[in-house]
Amino acid sequence: MKFVTVQHNNEPFVGIVASDESKVLLLNLVEEVMTGQKNFPSSMLECIALGDSFTKQVKVLLDWVQSGEKSDSFYIPMEELTLLAPIPRPSKNVFCVGKNYADHAIEMGSAEDIPEHVMVFTKAPTSVIGPNETILNHQTVTNQLDYEGELAVIIGKKGRAIKKEEALNYVFGYTIINDVTARDLQSRHRQFFIGKSLDTTCPMGPWIIHKSAVENPNNLNIETKVNGEVRQSSNTKNFIFSVEEIISVLSAGMTLEPGDIISTGTPAGVGKGFKPPRFLQQGDQIEISIESIGTLVNKIEDSAAN
Amino acid sequence: MKFVTVQHNNEPFVGIVASDESKVLLLNLVEEVMTGQKNFPSSMLECIALGDSFTKQVKVLLDWVQSGEKSDSFYIPMEELTLLAPIPRPSKNVFCVGKNYADHAIEMGSAEDIPEHVMVFTKAPTSVIGPNETILNHQTVTNQLDYEGELAVIIGKKGRAIKKEEALNYVFGYTIINDVTARDLQSRHRQFFIGKSLDTTCPMGPWIIHKSAVENPNNLNIETKVNGEVRQSSNTKNFIFSVEEIISVLSAGMTLEPGDIISTGTPAGVGKGFKPPRFLQQGDQIEISIESIGTLVNKIEDSAAN
Repeated sequence: MKFVTVQHNNEPFVGIVASDESKVLLLNLVEEVMTGQKNFPSSMLECIALGDSFTKQVKVLLDWVQSGEKSDSFYIPMEELTLLAPIPRPSKNVFCVGKNYADHAIEMGSAEDIPEHVMVFTKAPTSVIGPNETILNHQTVTNQLDYEGELAVIIGKKGRAIKKEEALNYVFGYTIINDVTARDLQSRHRQFFIGKSLDTTCPMGPWIIHKSAVENPNNLNIETKVNGEVRQSSNTKNFIFSVEEIISVLSAGMTLEPGDIISTGTPAGVGKGFKPPRFLQQGDQIEISIESIGTLVNKIEDSAAN
Repeated sequence: MKFVTVQHNNEPFVGIVASDESKVLLLNLVEEVMTGQKNFPSSMLECIALGDSFTKQVKVLLDWVQSGEKSDSFYIPMEELTLLAPIPRPSKNVFCVGKNYADHAIEMGSAEDIPEHVMVFTKAPTSVIGPNETILNHQTVTNQLDYEGELAVIIGKKGRAIKKEEALNYVFGYTIINDVTARDLQSRHRQFFIGKSLDTTCPMGPWIIHKSAVENPNNLNIETKVNGEVRQSSNTKNFIFSVEEIISVLSAGMTLEPGDIISTGTPAGVGKGFKPPRFLQQGDQIEISIESIGTLVNKIEDSAAN
């Protein structure tokens, strides 16, 4: 199941994307016809917080729709909707793993930069935007804007000191994040936060794929194109730290909560890795595709125009 | 004015502390007697988001209470209340400035560690606790737990690209934060986040003092005691980066929002700075006092007992 947050008639809804990705089932609308009630919250965060009962209720609705004769009538065509980030406003910063692919650690410095321990920084919730939304170029504060295609894990269940063997039980699903980075700010301010948290620099989506549809998050092809040219092409099997290990380390002394977002790091091929570097320019289009999930597309625009 | 979040009869309230600090005026209760209405939200975040109208309404209530004959009857004695963190659950991570006092930068390494640019990392909202709440010692993940007394700035107004000269107009008030840090995790994981975000390692309070009561945030005495012994004693005039500069740098490309919390860094005297280091032990009591604000007290307890 692919869970989306969409805007329809100026209202936000949580929906399920049809298998051909051409249309979306809005959960509240279906439920209202089926039961006369509107029990689903309109935000993904609240839905995820419902735990297993949320996915169970969704399955009941889907079965009912598919068993009916007019199942098509419940779907809204994609072109009548605006996709938002699946979690448009996270309730805390997005956790991000730094240098989780050896080839990226090397392109950013040398083999000595390959971390021995999980490295985590964060991105502010204000940086989140949805698919097809504009990434501002922030030309007054940076001239080294860079892309980073990443698999992101959405936590589904509260936990602390989560063991590696149990870590995937705490996952709700997966999405894609473009961990857009101002390289000059990242190095100038030493700690990564400032260079990682400019407004609009956390594109997320296009949806959350439920964990049941992903056999192994540590074996997914990942590819980033800029203006159609492949820049990053790898597989999450090249992770230094697996999804399980990241969850275990992060939660060792810090409680993880439903709706928490963990971006798992980026492979080699970022703009800074080229000689000379190839930073993002106004008009550039970045497409990040991850196997089993989909493609996240965003374009760079001039801040002054916004 | 000192704004507190308190628990009274199992309900949260926003209140004003009396000048002798012995009692609290619960805003909603006073308003109900005066107007028959309950317009104030019960969370500090929502109150701050009301902007100037919030403090204006509070002044009307205070005038009404003070002009009445039975003004005392509206106050609840401190001992009948539980003080919570003024913002018990921030809506994003707490922004923290690293190494903002030269003497602390030197005790953590050498003069080369004095930053040329503002260094910012974050603490997870799950780490926040209130005055007198227990700091867990997390003995399964760290044996180098350390204190850091800090002035924290509460943002009152949304803004991006805020100029230094206008920065204090964006402040709602000030509080105290103990930026409790697991030094071993801080260095092992390179980026500071993991070592800064263990549950219970962000004590905050005891209240927010309104900016109108602080002439200059860059000239306040700050002192930290452990078990009564003075460990940190400085003044915020020793900041490398002033409150105005921090706000300006942070907001350059990132929107600041009402209720955002910026902890401004700690002076010399942390446990790691001693030879040999003096890390926190079970039973230790940490008291941080900042001029014009008050004192934040917390005790270390064994995680296993909780």
